[in-house]
Amino acid sequence: MANDKKFVESITDMEKDFPQWYTDVVKKADLVDYSSVKGCMIIRPYGYAIWELIQKQLDTMFKETGHENVYMPMFIPESLLQKEKDHVEGFAPEVAWVTHGGENKLQERLCVRPTSETLFCDHYKNVIQSYRDLPKLYNQWCSVCRWEKTTRPFLRTTEFLWQEGHTAHATAEEAEEETIKMLNVYSDFCHNCLAIPVIKGQKTEKERFAGAKATYTIESLMHDGKALQSGTSHNFGDGFAHAFGIQYTDKNNELKYVHQTSWGMTTRLIGAVIMVHGDNSGLVLPPAVAPIQTIIVPIMQKKEGVLDKAYELQERLSKVARVKVDASDKTPGWKFSEYEMKGVPVRLEIGPKDIEKNQCVLARRDTGEKVFVSLDNLEEEITNLLNDIQANLLKKATERRDNKTYIATNMDEFEKTLNETPGFIKAMWCGDRACEDAIKEKTSATSRCIPFVQEEVSDTCICCGKKAKHMVYWGRAY
Amino acid sequence: MANDKKFVESITDMEKDFPQWYTDVVKKADLVDYSSVKGCMIIRPYGYAIWELIQKQLDTMFKETGHENVYMPMFIPESLLQKEKDHVEGFAPEVAWVTHGGENKLQERLCVRPTSETLFCDHYKNVIQSYRDLPKLYNQWCSVCRWEKTTRPFLRTTEFLWQEGHTAHATAEEAEEETIKMLNVYSDFCHNCLAIPVIKGQKTEKERFAGAKATYTIESLMHDGKALQSGTSHNFGDGFAHAFGIQYTDKNNELKYVHQTSWGMTTRLIGAVIMVHGDNSGLVLPPAVAPIQTIIVPIMQKKEGVLDKAYELQERLSKVARVKVDASDKTPGWKFSEYEMKGVPVRLEIGPKDIEKNQCVLARRDTGEKVFVSLDNLEEEITNLLNDIQANLLKKATERRDNKTYIATNMDEFEKTLNETPGFIKAMWCGDRACEDAIKEKTSATSRCIPFVQEEVSDTCICCGKKAKHMVYWGRAY
Repeated sequence: MANDKKFVESITDMEKDFPQWYTDVVKKADLVDYSSVKGCMIIRPYGYAIWELIQKQLDTMFKETGHENVYMPMFIPESLLQKEKDHVEGFAPEVAWVTHGGENKLQERLCVRPTSETLFCDHYKNVIQSYRDLPKLYNQWCSVCRWEKTTRPFLRTTEFLWQEGHTAHATAEEAEEETIKMLNVYSDFCHNCLAIPVIKGQKTEKERFAGAKATYTIESLMHDGKALQSGTSHNFGDGFAHAFGIQYTDKNNELKYVHQTSWGMTTRLIGAVIMVHGDNSGLVLPPAVAPIQTIIVPIMQKKEGVLDKAYELQERLSKVARVKVDASDKTPGWKFSEYEMKGVPVRLEIGPKDIEKNQCVLARRDTGEKVFVSLDNLEEEITNLLNDIQANLLKKATERRDNKTYIATNMDEFEKTLNETPGFIKAMWCGDRACEDAIKEKTSATSRCIPFVQEEVSDTCICCGKKAKHMVYWGRAY
Repeated sequence: MANDKKFVESITDMEKDFPQWYTDVVKKADLVDYSSVKGCMIIRPYGYAIWELIQKQLDTMFKETGHENVYMPMFIPESLLQKEKDHVEGFAPEVAWVTHGGENKLQERLCVRPTSETLFCDHYKNVIQSYRDLPKLYNQWCSVCRWEKTTRPFLRTTEFLWQEGHTAHATAEEAEEETIKMLNVYSDFCHNCLAIPVIKGQKTEKERFAGAKATYTIESLMHDGKALQSGTSHNFGDGFAHAFGIQYTDKNNELKYVHQTSWGMTTRLIGAVIMVHGDNSGLVLPPAVAPIQTIIVPIMQKKEGVLDKAYELQERLSKVARVKVDASDKTPGWKFSEYEMKGVPVRLEIGPKDIEKNQCVLARRDTGEKVFVSLDNLEEEITNLLNDIQANLLKKATERRDNKTYIATNMDEFEKTLNETPGFIKAMWCGDRACEDAIKEKTSATSRCIPFVQEEVSDTCICCGKKAKHMVYWGRAY
C-alpha cells in the first residue's frame, strides 16, 4: 500500500522531534489552521467536534452538580479590573486593550476578558442580598484572551475557548467544599472521558492564581515526559468579596461577606488528548470524545451490494455509536491511514468476500489488532470494543505516567532524572519560596502540585536540606 | 392574595408604555442584568437557558442540513477587514479597536469581530483547492461586537451572541439555493419553536448587507406594531472570492472563483419572543423554548404527603417535560405570579384535597384557563397541553400579525396607518432608491422586505406615482 506508507511517512517521528510531531498531528488531522491573527488559531470542524463532545459531557456534569450557565460581557473596564490588587497585577500585563469604539476614543479603556472574576463579582454585588440568594453556582462558556509571546495550537494561544465557573457561598467551609468538588468533577472527567490519569493536589503559593487563597490543580503527563496543568479550581476566600463589597444578610440579620470560588478548563484539553494518546500514525482518540467512533471503509466498493451493505451497517450501528461510511473515490489504503491519522477508534472493513461470509473486519486504532466478527451481533461487538478501547487507553496512559514518575532525594538525582528520563519527579520540599525559585532557576522544572496523597520519599528538602514539609510533584511543563 | 397583586402591579402596562413594559419584563423575569460595560448586558441563568434551547434546536437543524461548526479568532487585523470594499465601509464605523496587547502597542490594529466574513474567506483561501473541497458548509456560535449608540437588552447591544453560517460553493446556483435553504430553516425554526410567524422576502438594495449581492430576511411583528428583522441570509456571489482570491480547480481542470453565502440569527430572538407573546403579567414562553415547561406548586405544602406527592409527580413528568417543584417557603400566591412573570407554560397545583381526589389543577399561562385533571394520565395530559399551548401561541401571534397588516395606496393612507394603527403596511414601490429614502425621511418607516409572495395592492408607487415594480412590506422597526 504505497499511498498508505507515504501518508504516514509525512509525520515526524515523535521520538525524534516531539514538538514537530505535535504540529504535524494538529495540522494533518485537520484539527486547526493558522490564522492571519498572530497567536490565534482556527479550530476546524474535526477539532471543534471534539470540543463539542468535551463541552457536552462537562456541561452535563456541571448541571448535575447544580450549576447554571450565564453570559457576561467580553469587555472589562480598566477600573473594574483594578479592584482586586493581586488579580490586576497578575493579569494586566497580558491583556488586549480596546481604546476606540468606531471612530471615537473611549473615555476608559476596556480589556478583552482574560478571565471574568471581576465581572462576576460586579454582578454578584447586585444580585446577592440575603442568605436566601446563596449559593450562586454559575458557569460560563466563552473565549478569553491573554497576550502570549510564544503560542502553540491548543496549548497556549492568545485567544482560547474555555468554561469558567464562578460561585459565591455563605461560608468559608462551603466555598472550600465547592473548590474540591469541582476539582473532582475535572478529575473524573479526565479519567472517564479523556482516558487521562491525573494527579490531584494544591498549587504552591508561587503558582497560585492571582487573587486566590488556594489553587487546586489536576496535572497530567504527556508522552514526552512534560507535565500539563489540565484544570484548576480556586478558593478565593472573601478577598474579592471585600474588594467588591459583596455582602449578604444572614439568618440572624447580620451582614456577612460571601466566600467565592472559580474553576476552569480549556481547549488545552485537546492538546492533552493528542500528547497523551497519540502515536507515530497520528491522533488516537478515546471513544468518549471521538467525533467518529467507527469508520466504515468499503472494500471494492464498486462491486454490487458493497456500498448498500456499508450503509446498512451504518444505519444499524448509528444506534450505538457515531459511525460514518467513507464512500469517496480514494483507495482503501488512503482511507486507512487518513482515519488512523484522525484517531478514529475503530475501522470496519467490509468487502464482497466478507458479505458472502456474513462477517466484517474490525481494526482497533489503539492496538492495531484486527479481528473478523460476524455481522449478527455487530451492535454488541462495537459497543464492547469501544468500551474496551476507552479502558485500555486509560490503562496504558496510567502505566506510562507511572513508569515516568521518579523519586529524587537530592539535587543531583533531580537534575539527572529531569535530563535523562523526563517525567514527574516526586521530591521533598521545605515549603520556602526561595527553594522553589532556586529549583526553577537551576533546572527549569516547576512545582506541579503538592498532591493530596502524600508520601515521605525522604526527610529533607532536596534544595536546602532542611526538614521537609511536603512531598511535591515537579516537572518541566507546557 | 395581596402578594400576588403587588407583584403584578409592578410591571408597566404594555398599552401605556411598551418600551417600559419590555424593560420591566426582562428585569423582573430575571433574563438580564445591566453591567458596568456600557451597552453590554449580562444574560442571567433564566435568559441563558432560553438561549441554550434556541441553540440546541437551531444547531440540530444546521447539522441535519450538512453544516459543521468551527471556531474563528475573535480579532480581525485592520488590513484583512479592508479587503472587501463595501464590507469595510459597512462595518468599520462600528467596530471596537484593540490597539495594545499587554504593555505593547500593536503594529497593526485589530478589530473585535463585528461579523466574520473576512476571517472565513482568509481560511477558505487556504483550504479550498479543488472541486472536491466544495461545498464548505461552516457555522460558528460566538459573540460579536458592534459599537451601538443606543442599546436595549437583546434587541440592540454592543456585544451580542449569535451564530454565523459561512458557506462556499462551486456555482452561483448552489449559493443561491443555500441562501434560500437557510432562510427556510430560520423561518421553520421561528414557526415551530418560537411560535412566531414571519414574512419571508428580499431586502432592497438600500437595506442589503455590506458586501452582499442579495440579502433575504424574515420579518416578524411585535405587540406594539413595530417590525423586527429576525434573521438574514446573504448571497455574496463571487465578490468576496475575488477580493480574497478564493479559487478552485473544477472537473475540467479550470480555475474558478467560489460563490459564497452567510446567514445569522442572534440573541435578539429572545427579544422577539418577549414582544410577540408577552402580556401584562410578564413573559409568555412557547413550550419549545421554555426552560421550565411545568412548574409544580404544592398547596399547603407542610401537610403530610403534599411535598412527597409533588416530587412524585415531578419524577413522573420529567420523562415528558422540563418540570420543577417550587418547595420554597414563599406563599402559593407569590409563586403563581412569579412563574407567570417567567412565562412558564403550565402551572400544576397539588394540595391535600387534590391528593384525596387523585387529581390536580393545571393552569395555562397563555389563556389563564384552569382545569382539574386526574393524576392517572398526567403524562399524556401535560404532553397534549404543551402541544396545544405551542400551537395556540402561533395561532394567536399570526392573527395579531394579520390584524395589524394594512394596505396603503397613497402616502396619506400610509402615514395615517403608521401613526394611528402601527403594523406592517403593504404598499407598492417603483424600485427607486430615491422613493425609499423619501419614505423613510418622511415617516421613519423602512422597507422591511420585498416578500416572496407578491400581491398587486395597486398599480403605482405610493411615493412617486410611477408604475410600481414590487409590493413591499413597510414598517417602523427595532
